[in-house]
Amino acid sequence: MIFYGYFRSSAAYRCRIAFNLLGQSPNERYVHLRDGAQKQAAFSQINPQKLVPALEIDGEVITQSLAIIEYLNERFEGSLLGQSVIDRAHIRAFAQILACDTHPLQNLRVLNYIGAEYVQDKSKWAAHWIAEGLGACEVIAERHEGPCVFGGTPSLADICLIPQLYNARRFGVDLSALPRLVAIESHCLGLDAFARAAPEVQPDAE
Amino acid sequence: MIFYGYFRSSAAYRCRIAFNLLGQSPNERYVHLRDGAQKQAAFSQINPQKLVPALEIDGEVITQSLAIIEYLNERFEGSLLGQSVIDRAHIRAFAQILACDTHPLQNLRVLNYIGAEYVQDKSKWAAHWIAEGLGACEVIAERHEGPCVFGGTPSLADICLIPQLYNARRFGVDLSALPRLVAIESHCLGLDAFARAAPEVQPDAE
Repeated sequence: MIFYGYFRSSAAYRCRIAFNLLGQSPNERYVHLRDGAQKQAAFSQINPQKLVPALEIDGEVITQSLAIIEYLNERFEGSLLGQSVIDRAHIRAFAQILACDTHPLQNLRVLNYIGAEYVQDKSKWAAHWIAEGLGACEVIAERHEGPCVFGGTPSLADICLIPQLYNARRFGVDLSALPRLVAIESHCLGLDAFARAAPEVQPDAE
Repeated sequence: MIFYGYFRSSAAYRCRIAFNLLGQSPNERYVHLRDGAQKQAAFSQINPQKLVPALEIDGEVITQSLAIIEYLNERFEGSLLGQSVIDRAHIRAFAQILACDTHPLQNLRVLNYIGAEYVQDKSKWAAHWIAEGLGACEVIAERHEGPCVFGGTPSLADICLIPQLYNARRFGVDLSALPRLVAIESHCLGLDAFARAAPEVQPDAE
């Protein structure tokens, strides 16, 4: 397995947590997003979308972090998606609030565009959408108990939540209205699988 | 089953196609997004994210279109996700290029924000991200054969593609560089399940 990531990419961060939770150690390649390495032919052949993450396995390339994690979970028989059909639906929906409606609005390529076309200070834009997404997640997480979003063990929901909270702090989002999410974060960051996936401890961290 | 949608919501459109492909007919409720019905207490109790779609089933509420479709596919034993672990990965990744990195950048709430904060003409913004996403999808779809994105029968990939092409036309995106996607669209729009899901034939269409 070859995993293409970048230390600060939330989507790569999610995959790193999943690899750790599943006990997998891929060979890692670092694609320097700020230097534009994702746009060079060598990488765009691997992923035509010119984004990290990407996973090479068995001669195939899988892209998109949620697709990669679902694949890993099926392939290595994990429990990151819950046990029942309805559990999977709730876990996926929570993950997608972040992976569809939150993070893509504040990732590097979108912030670059906002900065070039509209306004120099992109923090307000990023913070607005992060607060929207996490606000909905807080309401949902409050309906469930346990140290993780859905019970006692980490799922895809936690895998998406922790990198999004990391970004929330970077963009100065007020987390005081999100006590349940902050408690889940505190628990997860104490777990080895999450701690080893953190951006600042990656070999390509700057 | 009660399905909450809006005729012009791409995410609801995806679910309508899936219901049709799976032979399911939920009771439909129409949430008028332009009138702000999604922000009223009656609906935000159902979906704290204040977005359509949402599905009520067996006393549970499922949100997020991809989570709803995966649920329906599991529950009603469909074949919308392919047959093997690697097929599912490719289908999900294709769907997520659109559902994560394309559509959320050009949906109503984001366009409203762009319009209020930055610029009156939001078409350039919308068209830029739609062209980015569809451009990557074209490269991937060209690697596969058949009338649909992945072979002969519609999958979650086609379910996401057709509503995104509908939006591309609304925002004046040049489709001349996307011949494979346009051919797939032409095929799918000829299928009853897609035709009956089109925005303009919904009871709440304006």
